Amino acid sequence: MRAAFNFSHPLRVRWAECDAQGIVFNGNYFLYFDVAMGEWLRALGFEPATTIEFFTVRAEADYKAPAKFDDMLDVAARCARLGEKSMTLKFAVFRGEDLLTEGALTYVHADLSTRKSTPIPKEFIDRVLAFERTAPERKSAS
Amino acid sequence: MRAAFNFSHPLRVRWAECDAQGIVFNGNYFLYFDVAMGEWLRALGFEPATTIEFFTVRAEADYKAPAKFDDMLDVAARCARLGEKSMTLKFAVFRGEDLLTEGALTYVHADLSTRKSTPIPKEFIDRVLAFERTAPERKSAS
Amino acid sequence: MRAAFNFSHPLRVRWAECDAQGIVFNGNYFLYFDVAMGEWLRALGFEPATTIEFFTVRAEADYKAPAKFDDMLDVAARCARLGEKSMTLKFAVFRGEDLLTEGALTYVHADLSTRKSTPIPKEFIDRVLAFERTAPERKSAS
Amino acid sequence: MRAAFNFSHPLRVRWAECDAQGIVFNGNYFLYFDVAMGEWLRALGFEPATTIEFFTVRAEADYKAPAKFDDMLDVAARCARLGEKSMTLKFAVFRGEDLLTEGALTYVHADLSTRKSTPIPKEFIDRVLAFERTAPERKSAS
Repeated sequence: MRAAFNFSHPLRVRWAECDAQGIVFNGNYFLYFDVAMGEWLRALGFEPATTIEFFTVRAEADYKAPAKFDDMLDVAARCARLGEKSMTLKFAVFRGEDLLTEGALTYVHADLSTRKSTPIPKEFIDRVLAFERTAPERKSAS
Repeated sequence: MRAAFNFSHPLRVRWAECDAQGIVFNGNYFLYFDVAMGEWLRALGFEPATTIEFFTVRAEADYKAPAKFDDMLDVAARCARLGEKSMTLKFAVFRGEDLLTEGALTYVHADLSTRKSTPIPKEFIDRVLAFERTAPERKSAS
Repeated sequence: MRAAFNFSHPLRVRWAECDAQGIVFNGNYFLYFDVAMGEWLRALGFEPATTIEFFTVRAEADYKAPAKFDDMLDVAARCARLGEKSMTLKFAVFRGEDLLTEGALTYVHADLSTRKSTPIPKEFIDRVLAFERTAPERKSAS
Repeated sequence: MRAAFNFSHPLRVRWAECDAQGIVFNGNYFLYFDVAMGEWLRALGFEPATTIEFFTVRAEADYKAPAKFDDMLDVAARCARLGEKSMTLKFAVFRGEDLLTEGALTYVHADLSTRKSTPIPKEFIDRVLAFERTAPERKSAS
């Protein structure tokens, strides 16, 4: 499973991210996915602060085992689908060899002022295709 | 769509929940779902603080329109599936008549110390079935 | 102590706001103060979403007793100092009669684009003075 | 100022930590301080996950300049006061040479089950004194 990813970002679990059960609150994994998305952009050669022209339209996560305070995690990210105006990134959170959480975020490329979807720039597509070890599907969201 | 829900909880968007795009950060809707789950438990006659014997195993959300700072939202919740050891709640976030976000959380009932799944108590099932306007599916997660 | 405040806002502690000690994470009280500030603005007759022309320059809190998940809190707020370009709000978090946390936030009124401090508008000052039970100090920050 | 600190921890500003003004929400600096406290413990040779026997009793921050999304920060931490049962850590957040925020957290050493304050263990005191470049004050909180 890990072999499908060409990118991962290390992350240490913060105290405030854990809930009263002593484990990372389920919603905070989407924070981790978001951090990994930014670092994946950077790995592709983009500046996260100026490339955020994507709106999130779908989020999902499957929780397999909990992460605890101070755990050192590895958040893997890859583009699993690259459509004309949208894309889906898949994420996997590992602690050592253990897969703790899997998830996905689907983004629509959009003009930030009008919120209208616009085609993903060719340069972005080219860099993604050159970067990913596992080729993303090339279709639009159904 | 709203008619399917027998419960909703009002919520005002906080400043810190909005991101630099000026809209609620996608991961924070899972915070809203979690709040609504607790209030749904209370509406069923349970004390949220002593009924949290559920682990979240799956989360999903579809974002249709953004919520902004100070928006008054209504977070609807209902049990859509009630299995032997797990259940799925569906959520819908409204601003007035507008549906902003839909989502679902799947929980496994478990012994909090061993983390082993255990059957959902009969009293819980009875109250859910008596409460929900739309009858939940009665099957286990596939 | 409570008598000094002319305003308070009820708030229920969320699961995700508690940390692995089972109590509200210390930093989250500043979230509560921020919510109370917005509601205090509303009580004064302002729209929080269009009146946020204040930058926070100082924050402080004294923690006396912890709040736990699902606690119903009352966050009192009052303007304790009203200078020409800055003001200090004091906050007190109560659970029933128990004072859990006290704090303060100091804001500078500023042009949001240039971040230059500007005088607090007379209308704002008039409404604060008319609203507060305990008259704020009328001096600038030292 | 930076010279007073023997420890700092690098941190990148996350998207979700920024508010609708596009800058780090004031309360989130206490999250940064908390992270730095844990890493400072680690630098002293302690395991943060098993050394959290401190309750926060006071927090303060002075905001001088805002941090923005994706900024690379350095959060410096040092023990500024080491009493019999409590201590105060000072923090300073830098972006390059710029000091953005200063702050402090005061902790009481306590038995986590009874919440009664207990003397800070001698080993902890010894390590702090050996570690800090600037000797902490040796007095209890007034």
